[in-house]
Amino acid sequence: MTATAPPDRVAELAAAVTDSSTSPADLVAASTDRSGLIPAGVPDLVVRAVTVDDVVATVTHASRTATPVVTRGAGTGLSGGAVAGTGEIVLDVSGMNRILEVDPGNGTARVEPGVITADLDAAAAVHGLRYAPDPASAAISTIGGNIATNAGGLRCVKYGVTRDAVLALDVVLGDGRRLRTGRATAKGVTGYDLTGLFVGSEGTLGVVVEATVRLTPRPVGTQTVTAAFATVTDAADAVAALLRAGLTPSTLELLDHATLIAIDDAHGTSLGAAGGAFLLVQTDGVGAEREMELIRGILCRTATRVESAADDAEAEKLLQVRRLALPSIERLGRVLIEDIAVPRTRLSDAVDGIAEISDRTGVKIFTFAHAGDGNLHPIVVAGAGPTEPIPEPVQTAVGDVFALALRLGGTLTGEHGVGVLKRPWLSDELGDVGLGVQHSLKTVFDPAGILNPGKAI
Amino acid sequence: MTATAPPDRVAELAAAVTDSSTSPADLVAASTDRSGLIPAGVPDLVVRAVTVDDVVATVTHASRTATPVVTRGAGTGLSGGAVAGTGEIVLDVSGMNRILEVDPGNGTARVEPGVITADLDAAAAVHGLRYAPDPASAAISTIGGNIATNAGGLRCVKYGVTRDAVLALDVVLGDGRRLRTGRATAKGVTGYDLTGLFVGSEGTLGVVVEATVRLTPRPVGTQTVTAAFATVTDAADAVAALLRAGLTPSTLELLDHATLIAIDDAHGTSLGAAGGAFLLVQTDGVGAEREMELIRGILCRTATRVESAADDAEAEKLLQVRRLALPSIERLGRVLIEDIAVPRTRLSDAVDGIAEISDRTGVKIFTFAHAGDGNLHPIVVAGAGPTEPIPEPVQTAVGDVFALALRLGGTLTGEHGVGVLKRPWLSDELGDVGLGVQHSLKTVFDPAGILNPGKAI
Ligand SMILES: Cc1cc2nc3c(=O)[nH]c(=O)nc-3n(C[C@H](O)[C@H](O)[C@H](O)COP(=O)(O)OP(=O)(O)OC[C@H]3O[C@@H](n4cnc5c(N)ncnc54)[C@H](O)[C@@H]3O)c2cc1C
Ligand SMILES: Cc1cc2nc3c(=O)[nH]c(=O)nc-3n(C[C@H](O)[C@H](O)[C@H](O)COP(=O)(O)OP(=O)(O)OC[C@H]3O[C@@H](n4cnc5c(N)ncnc54)[C@H](O)[C@@H]3O)c2cc1C
Repeated sequence: MTATAPPDRVAELAAAVTDSSTSPADLVAASTDRSGLIPAGVPDLVVRAVTVDDVVATVTHASRTATPVVTRGAGTGLSGGAVAGTGEIVLDVSGMNRILEVDPGNGTARVEPGVITADLDAAAAVHGLRYAPDPASAAISTIGGNIATNAGGLRCVKYGVTRDAVLALDVVLGDGRRLRTGRATAKGVTGYDLTGLFVGSEGTLGVVVEATVRLTPRPVGTQTVTAAFATVTDAADAVAALLRAGLTPSTLELLDHATLIAIDDAHGTSLGAAGGAFLLVQTDGVGAEREMELIRGILCRTATRVESAADDAEAEKLLQVRRLALPSIERLGRVLIEDIAVPRTRLSDAVDGIAEISDRTGVKIFTFAHAGDGNLHPIVVAGAGPTEPIPEPVQTAVGDVFALALRLGGTLTGEHGVGVLKRPWLSDELGDVGLGVQHSLKTVFDPAGILNPGKAI
Repeated sequence: MTATAPPDRVAELAAAVTDSSTSPADLVAASTDRSGLIPAGVPDLVVRAVTVDDVVATVTHASRTATPVVTRGAGTGLSGGAVAGTGEIVLDVSGMNRILEVDPGNGTARVEPGVITADLDAAAAVHGLRYAPDPASAAISTIGGNIATNAGGLRCVKYGVTRDAVLALDVVLGDGRRLRTGRATAKGVTGYDLTGLFVGSEGTLGVVVEATVRLTPRPVGTQTVTAAFATVTDAADAVAALLRAGLTPSTLELLDHATLIAIDDAHGTSLGAAGGAFLLVQTDGVGAEREMELIRGILCRTATRVESAADDAEAEKLLQVRRLALPSIERLGRVLIEDIAVPRTRLSDAVDGIAEISDRTGVKIFTFAHAGDGNLHPIVVAGAGPTEPIPEPVQTAVGDVFALALRLGGTLTGEHGVGVLKRPWLSDELGDVGLGVQHSLKTVFDPAGILNPGKAI
């Protein structure tokens, strides 16, 4: 991050947009996300965009003055993608939050980027529809941020990730040009898939100012079951068996023993006593009951206990266990939330490998997983205060977790994005040609290199 | 297409690869696809690649000598993407046809690009799995060609297009560099989505030399129903109603009245008498029977006749009607197979609009559609022999069909690709910024501009 910009330059941009701030409190608030990463200083200005013109004015000014622009949604990101420091400008688009259209006939909606994920889903619900991608942050994150990180969630195993829900985008490029990508139709192959390129690009290729997304019917007949297993291997084997059987659970979550103990400690439950691993399974749709019957049959072969919800209230209780996982661990101090993914047959190898890393380094790691996707969240206890540097053994443990993921044929990040935190390991996964191509691609969309430099790639 | 290359240059390349040909018959055979497009002359050489080294040698030589390279799978494309003329080299990868691995546990396969689509599906079937994308050409097209065109098929409405089945690629770029994209995991967001960029790129960004694809469980319990309707509007309304009800048919095909009459004329059936439009609907999975019950309920409200298959043999008979559509029309002479897509609520507007164009221009047009995706195939009778120019009114009719698609918020091509034939209308859909960005993107992967120049973008 470079030196502070000359005050007149900042004032010039401030005069060109509807709303902005240089108040220290606003600058500090706009400088971090939920990754725990501490930026070097604070940004020079926060633009609070309310129109596309504000975005174009900001990017054009930044391009002319070679000023880095950090686009910001709700700042709930976990990889440092929205972190901004001295010499940078924050482009906060959370105020562009209108739902422009819900088209129930076509199952689509057009939204501005600052719309809160849950608000879009609520607007869809009026028509019996749903916005399927469900990051756990849905109540606080924005659609723009979800698109920029290709956010996942609990339902991906059946309904896909954010990418699968985005049909078309309206984007302001790094030189102020406006680009429309994709189309409102279900299928289409005219031109290269630019929509897919922008999804997951973490604010480095352009600023999303409008999105056309897919809405799907709200599912009927959701069934909820939990199962306890003696070991993670047993649980992972059950996951593999039910996917092999062609069953399509809508949720398939795993908690490891350390996580169960953390919940027990926080809430006086006795989940850890029931076994070494825990699965939460849901089905939905016309065949949901029959499908859950078949799934129960598979779970019962090896589970130490299987519990079914008879009604919504009971289902809520079973879901609660999964929801308590992260807060129960966060009680223990500052954590690093990791996000590796592996081929699904390597799920138990990954959990075992993480346990081994924890034993070897003495660093506490708790793991829960979107098991059906092989996407694990190892939660590493940082052993340091919010502003203290991360201790050496914790750094080692995190590096070893990434190396483990790659060794098992996996990836550094399943859904949270690379941001700043995972950049050091990027070339291990992408290779030199891959990373080189990514950098060349960026220059097509952002010739001056002003969009979120030093992030994602 | 430029002048023929000097013979010594052609000989030099021939010496560098495992197998190639300059025999006139081979050159002619390698110069066309199934679009009916006639190239200017024949290519200079056909390289028959059997190894990745052959591909690298060809591309490297072409890059050094500024020779256009047309990659070719099975040559079943319908847009002229694999058409090659004088001064060009054909890189035929159909001989790279090994299935390298089927991993039933993870539901993935690694294949060379020349593998025939149906062969991959058959290899998956051994493990109870399936390669879901099912272009009607599956028995003759290659996976590499399917990837390069993002091929669709009858099952897209439930199982997605080729893009949704491709996890990772190994690609030789225009300068001979080798690039790996994507990963074998279900989820992952490290770096930009290059896999998606290559899918549908019609041989203009790189040569796919290996693909890791997703296999899904073979569905159980398939149910098949057909329904006749008085009008296309009634049929389209039924399609909309059953999708709105949250039902997920695995096949949802529509035939218009002209198509029904063509089948009747060819096969002595009396489909046209039953109504003005025909739907073929399938469901599959654990809830298939119940789901079909609900679908029948919706169809019966407005259909003039609904017929259910009691067993596989009867289902085969009902499916046969859809299969006869294209061959019955092709009896009438040379046809142009179009491929527009519209938002699904505009389906009947599209069919009506096409009928209006047919009436106004006097050109015969038959339409069938992947109705659930709003993807229509207007089959235009060319009124000319295979080597004759397309008559003026036919050209007008085709242009009007494209304009109609765009006016209805749709696209020029749902699944066949742009190739050569749809390029004149490209900027109408993509806009100038969009098309400009596409061209800039190409230079990142193909700096010398040798990969399938003049195609796709
Ligand atoms: C409690 C909690 C639970 C979470 N659960 C999940 C989960 O289940 N799954 C998951 O995937 N993530 C999860 N996350 C991470 C986070 O919520 C997601 O990454 C979310 O998509 C970020 O949205 P945001 O609006 O907060 O984006 P920000 O944090 O503001 O930004 C994230 C990135 O997107 C870019 N960006 C934002 N808006 C735009 C735009 N309009 N145009 C271009 N670039 C833009 C930013 O520059 C930055 O790089 C969770 C976070 C928390 C705190
Ligand atoms: C009877 C019939 C029915 C059809 N039905 C359908 C259908 O239902 N759905 C549908 O989508 N299409 C359909 N098609 C069109 C065609 O089959 C598809 O486009 C198919 O994907 C082409 O595969 P191919 O191997 O024949 O490719 P080719 O025709 O050889 O090439 C197609 C394009 O891909 C490029 N290419 C081929 N291989 C590679 C590679 N390894 N690397 C990079 N580029 C490559 C070529 O340069 C060209 O641009 C049909 C065609 C016919 C004749």
